[in-house]
Parts: sequence; C-alpha cells; structure tokens
Amino acid sequence: MALIVQKFGGTSVGTPDRIRNAARRIIQAANEGNQVVAVVSAMGKTTDELVKLAGEITSKPSKREMDMLLTTGEQITISLLAMALEEAGYPAESLTGWQAGIQTESLHGNARILDIDTNRLRTLLNKGKIAVVAGFQGWTASHNISTLGRGGSDTTAVALAAALRADKCEIYTDVTGVFTTDPRVVKHARKLSAISYDEMLELANLGAGVLHPRAVEFAKNYGVKLEVRSSMEQERGTIVEEEAEMENNLVVRGLAFEGNVTKITIEDLPNGLNTLSSVFSLLADNNINVDIIIQSVNKQEKTNISFSIDSSIFDDTVKLLEQNKVQLGYGQILHEDGLAKVSIVGSGMISNPGVAAQMFKTLSDQDIMIKMVSTSEIKVSTVVGQQDMIKAIETLHDVFELDARVPAQQA
Amino acid sequence: MALIVQKFGGTSVGTPDRIRNAARRIIQAANEGNQVVAVVSAMGKTTDELVKLAGEITSKPSKREMDMLLTTGEQITISLLAMALEEAGYPAESLTGWQAGIQTESLHGNARILDIDTNRLRTLLNKGKIAVVAGFQGWTASHNISTLGRGGSDTTAVALAAALRADKCEIYTDVTGVFTTDPRVVKHARKLSAISYDEMLELANLGAGVLHPRAVEFAKNYGVKLEVRSSMEQERGTIVEEEAEMENNLVVRGLAFEGNVTKITIEDLPNGLNTLSSVFSLLADNNINVDIIIQSVNKQEKTNISFSIDSSIFDDTVKLLEQNKVQLGYGQILHEDGLAKVSIVGSGMISNPGVAAQMFKTLSDQDIMIKMVSTSEIKVSTVVGQQDMIKAIETLHDVFELDARVPAQQA
Repeated sequence: MALIVQKFGGTSVGTPDRIRNAARRIIQAANEGNQVVAVVSAMGKTTDELVKLAGEITSKPSKREMDMLLTTGEQITISLLAMALEEAGYPAESLTGWQAGIQTESLHGNARILDIDTNRLRTLLNKGKIAVVAGFQGWTASHNISTLGRGGSDTTAVALAAALRADKCEIYTDVTGVFTTDPRVVKHARKLSAISYDEMLELANLGAGVLHPRAVEFAKNYGVKLEVRSSMEQERGTIVEEEAEMENNLVVRGLAFEGNVTKITIEDLPNGLNTLSSVFSLLADNNINVDIIIQSVNKQEKTNISFSIDSSIFDDTVKLLEQNKVQLGYGQILHEDGLAKVSIVGSGMISNPGVAAQMFKTLSDQDIMIKMVSTSEIKVSTVVGQQDMIKAIETLHDVFELDARVPAQQA
Repeated sequence: MALIVQKFGGTSVGTPDRIRNAARRIIQAANEGNQVVAVVSAMGKTTDELVKLAGEITSKPSKREMDMLLTTGEQITISLLAMALEEAGYPAESLTGWQAGIQTESLHGNARILDIDTNRLRTLLNKGKIAVVAGFQGWTASHNISTLGRGGSDTTAVALAAALRADKCEIYTDVTGVFTTDPRVVKHARKLSAISYDEMLELANLGAGVLHPRAVEFAKNYGVKLEVRSSMEQERGTIVEEEAEMENNLVVRGLAFEGNVTKITIEDLPNGLNTLSSVFSLLADNNINVDIIIQSVNKQEKTNISFSIDSSIFDDTVKLLEQNKVQLGYGQILHEDGLAKVSIVGSGMISNPGVAAQMFKTLSDQDIMIKMVSTSEIKVSTVVGQQDMIKAIETLHDVFELDARVPAQQA
C-alpha cells in the first residue's frame, strides 16, 4: 500500500463545490489502494479577509496574534473537506498543524519546521482513515500557534511527505503542470513530464509560480518525489525529482521571464574589500530584493556596481541609497528602466558550455540588445529591453526546440 | 490585587468597534489594579455563517468536524481582542481553549469541562499580561478540539473563575442586569441589584436569557460571584451570589413568562408503576423537551397524564406518541394550544407558604383561568390563556410590589 500526500491550494478549495472536487481526487487515490494525507490552504480569499479584519483593529498587529487569526482559515477548510469525505462515505479526520505534530521554531509569521511527530497521523492512517491536515501552520515548543510564511502549505505537504516517507507528494493547482515557459505568452509552450529539483528551483524563483521554492528545496533535501498537476483535469502532471529523465538530450528545460525590471548603476564607489557587502547589506536590511548583480573590478581606486530590481521598488531603492551616500562614498546613481529579464534553465547546460553562447547569438540575430548577463550552472539570465521580451522568448523557445519534442506523456 | 474574569458575548464583540469597546472595559479593570482574564464568544453572526457553510457540504456533519469548524469563530475574536489591547498599550495574549488548559469529556458538540490546567494562564497573568481566552471550547484527553454546547462561553468564564479562584466573574451583555421581569413587556420592571443562584436558575430556565443556566449551576457549585452587566453602559449590574441580600423582605424576586405553550393530555393510560417513565423516556429519547408535568393518580386501572410543551414541537410530539400508541396503551390524546406560562420566582417563598395562594387569588380576581400549576420551593408556575398573559404579569408585578422598592444601587 502506497502513501500519498496531496496538497490543495486556496483556489482548489475556494468554494464548497471545489472542496467536493478535492474530495473526489482524494477518494480516487484512496480507491486505488493508497493511504492519503491531504494538506489544504485557506479557502480562496479567506486570508485576505482576515488580514483586512485585523487592519480594522490595528495597523501593527503582533505576529503572534496574526498567526492566531490567520490559522483559522485552514482550520475551516480541513473541517469542511473532512465533512465532504465523510459525506461520500470515506472515514476522515481533520488535524490542525499542532494536532498533526508539526513543530516549528519559536517564531511567528515565518517559522521553519523543526520536527514532525507523526504518531497521531500514523495511528489515524492505520485505522484506514484519510487525514486532512491544515497547511501553513504548526506549533512552537511553548505551544503557541505559528505559521510558516509564504508557500507554507506547499512546505507542509512536502515536510509531511518526508516525515511519513510518502511515496509521492502531489501538488494540485490550477495549471496542469510545469511548462517550458508561460503558455499564456508562448502558444507552443509544452508541459514537461519531468523536471529536476534544481531546474524547478530556478523556474520557481523566476516566477513560474506553481510551486514555492522553499517547498522544492525541502523536497530536494529529503528526496520527496513531487507531482504538480491540475485539481480540475485528469491528465498527468509534471514529476519533480532528483534526476529528471533527459528527454532526448533536452539541454534547456524551460524559459522564465519577468517584464518589469530596472537596472541601477552606482558609479565611482571606493574600490575596497567591503564595498559589495556595504551596498548589499544596506539593501537587504531594508528588504530591497536585488536580482542580478554585476561588478567588474579594475585595478583602480573607484569601481561601478550594477544590479537589477523590480521596477516597483525603484523609488525606495534610490531614496535609501541617497540617504546613505556619505557612508557609501559613491559618485552618482544611474538607472535604466523599461527592461525585462529572460532566462533559460536546464541542468543539461552544465555539460554543454555552448548553450549561453547560443542564447546570446539568438538574441543578437534578432537585433535584441543584451544589457546584463548572469549565469549559474543550470541557468543563463539576460536583461533586455521590455519591447524585445516576447520576441526573445518566442525565438529562444524555437531555437532550443522546446515545442518540437515528443509531447508530454498523457495519463 | 484582585483577579477578575470578564466574559463578552457575540453581540459585545460583533464588530471591530465593539471589540475596541470590550478592550476598554478590560483596560478599565486593569487600570484599577486587577489581573484580568477575558473570555469571548464568536463575533456576531460568525457561528451562523460557519454552520451555513457546513450545510453546503453535508446535511449531517460529524460533531467532531463541526467542533473543528465552529471553534475558529472564537479563535478569530481572541486574536482581534488581543490586538486591540496591544494597540492600546496593554500587553495581552490570546489563548484557544486547549492553550488555556480547558480539558473536557471525550465528546463533541456538548462536552462538559473535566478539569482546567491553569499553569499557562497563571504564568501569563503573573507576567502582567491580560489573558484573552476563547470561550465555548476545550480539548479532550486525546487532544481533539471539543465544544461545550449552548451557553458555552458563559460556562468557560465561570469555570475559569472557579479554577483561578477569581474574585468575580463579570458577564457583559446587551442588557444592564437581571430585571424583575422583561422590561420590554412591563414598563415598571426594575433591575435587581442582587439575586441568588437558585433564583437566577429559575429565571434563566424560564427564558430570562441573560445568563446560561449551566453557567449559573457551575457558579453555584463553586461559589463564583457573578455580575451581569452591560458592555455599553457604565452602571453597575446585578450580582448573582449564594445569599442575595433580602431587599426589604422581597419574597418574590422576579417574574418569568413564555407565550407559546401547548398542553397535551394522554387519557386512559394503564395505571402501572412504569407508566410515567415509559412516556417521558420516550419523549426524552426523541429530544422532546417537556416542561410542566401533571399526573393525578386515582385508585383506578387507568390514569391521565398532562404536560406542557413549546407549541413549535407539537406536531412532532403527537406523531411520536401516535407511533407508540400500542406500546404505551393509552386511549386518546387531547390538547389545548394558545396557552402561556407565568411564573413567580423568589427564594423568600420557602418561608412564606401564602405566596402561591396570593398568586392564584390575584389571577382569579382578574378572571384569569389557571389551566395548570407547578410549584418548587422557590417558584410557582401557572399556565393560562395566551390572551391573559400580559395582564397576569402586570398585575402580579404590582401585587408583589416588584416596582415599588428602592431602585437598584447605581455605580
């Protein structure tokens, strides 16, 4: 008998009808002879409504009380889903985070899972019941209710799968899997039948958005086999595992992109040992999220640093840098907005040094000017003009033959 | 330093504004140098909305899952109230039922409190914090979330007051105290400054409705001093304690009434030892709530039993009796509807045997026909025609001089 963890996000349990639909997916797995642990998020907009309610009381709620408040969202979903399963004749029991034994750091709002005591879950499964666990939440050593922060329910599902040594962790979402790139932009985008953790991490960080990077990391660390699939359709999804099958020498697995990038250059910084750390510690301490960083040091007294940010935080970033001009000791700040980032991702790149070159040539053949470049072992990112983004993606999708392969395997 | 438990019902925390108002009442008590434990219900209509949500999933939810669902209501309130206190600069911490150590029977929907582990609450209070506890809920020995059933938050407050040996338990509600009778019906109804547990119990059971009988019983058993008072107005409320001051020989403390009563008579039952138990066990097993019971046994083979019920359950009651006609072996069922119950309550009656007679005389002087009578040591109930109810109450209120006394003491 296999053990499967199934995770249903807020959209997949947003209404009583959708909760019934999630129940059907669980029952299907149970009927196939599996033990099932379902992990759920709060229904649709519940969390937003609770946040709004807190806002009517105070503009600075304590994190402990926010956790107390927000965790009711998942608690509502687990009870309703358990009811739906029982209504269909399947014995089920709902468990809050603490009841499921999920112990976290003594932190609120963004706690990490420290340990999971699976005794209660095991007992419940061994009685032939379906366990329905509240995602996103746990308890601290002093028995306060804590939350896991962004992507929390994905993390709960993967952590439970790891602790229970589940055979698979299925992430149900509103797309049918992980695509070579965003199918809303590139019509020929193809669903991948498999992808590696690292590739998924690069795609997730770049905004593919179907699976939280934190959960992918957790899955990678504990070797949990994931499947990203649709809660509404029956077709098989995308398997995420350590070594995804190398479908016909697929060097590039997918394309990611972001359309709202600004490049900032700080000129004439002192060329010292701690220049980089001064600049980026300042930005990090003020929650300014920096993406690509480029510094090319020459043997001179002064140096320039360039980095890219999301355009929405441009004003804050410049203000902060100007307030600290004296300490940092730079000359002036330049910027260029209206940019976009286009990345190719694939673990096959490690052994194919020509991939980056092929990307650059493809873009230059299209008269697309590359403003910044950043590379990792399995990713090459370029910053280009916003107006060139779609053309860049479509051309790269063709060049790397992402839609020319065998279609993903259908269930 | 005194310790006060304050309970705020659903109306008193129904909106963010009202939650802030409750916070002000708590802060007032804290500023007077008291340690404060606040117990709260779910906001306004929250419970109804959750019940409706469950109804969209199933018509027969398990009690365990309903408890899981409904307890989110109070959890929302405690977090918001703690935020409101912190916003005003008063350190506070919210606790769910299980966090407050409230251990109940292993039952769902209507569990009794078995024990309260006050360690966490004591620690919190000793740190100078205000404790905000979710009413109506606890946990079982196997760490399931349970609820206390109707009047649950009142019971939580009283039980905590007992366990913590609090100096007082204040019940905040939308009326200013306990009245001699319903002030909406009798204009001269007067707020009582004090009332005994037993009197309160008789009034509560008869529909005075400000305090759940179960909580009053609990308070009586553990000697918890209660005060029923308004969450919106500052005036002192009504103290409920063992021996309420006998304000000027007040023999009758209050009047209670219900306007929707049907009398049922079962004729020609076998006059056996187990006749009463057969009939009323059958009714109880089917959740038919019987009020006054009258049987006058003659030395004959057959007997008649009369009892009163709320008119709304008349059809169910008759149907049940007819289905069991053969087993019960009766002749026929008669009924009279359009009746009302009028009761006088007061512990002074025990030593004043003429009180019942005075009541009967008062009603007969007004040409009011008495259909049934039931007496206890501190109560006399009569069933009369609905059309006579108001006249009966007003006349009795005058005759027993309920509005002629010294006004209730003002704060």
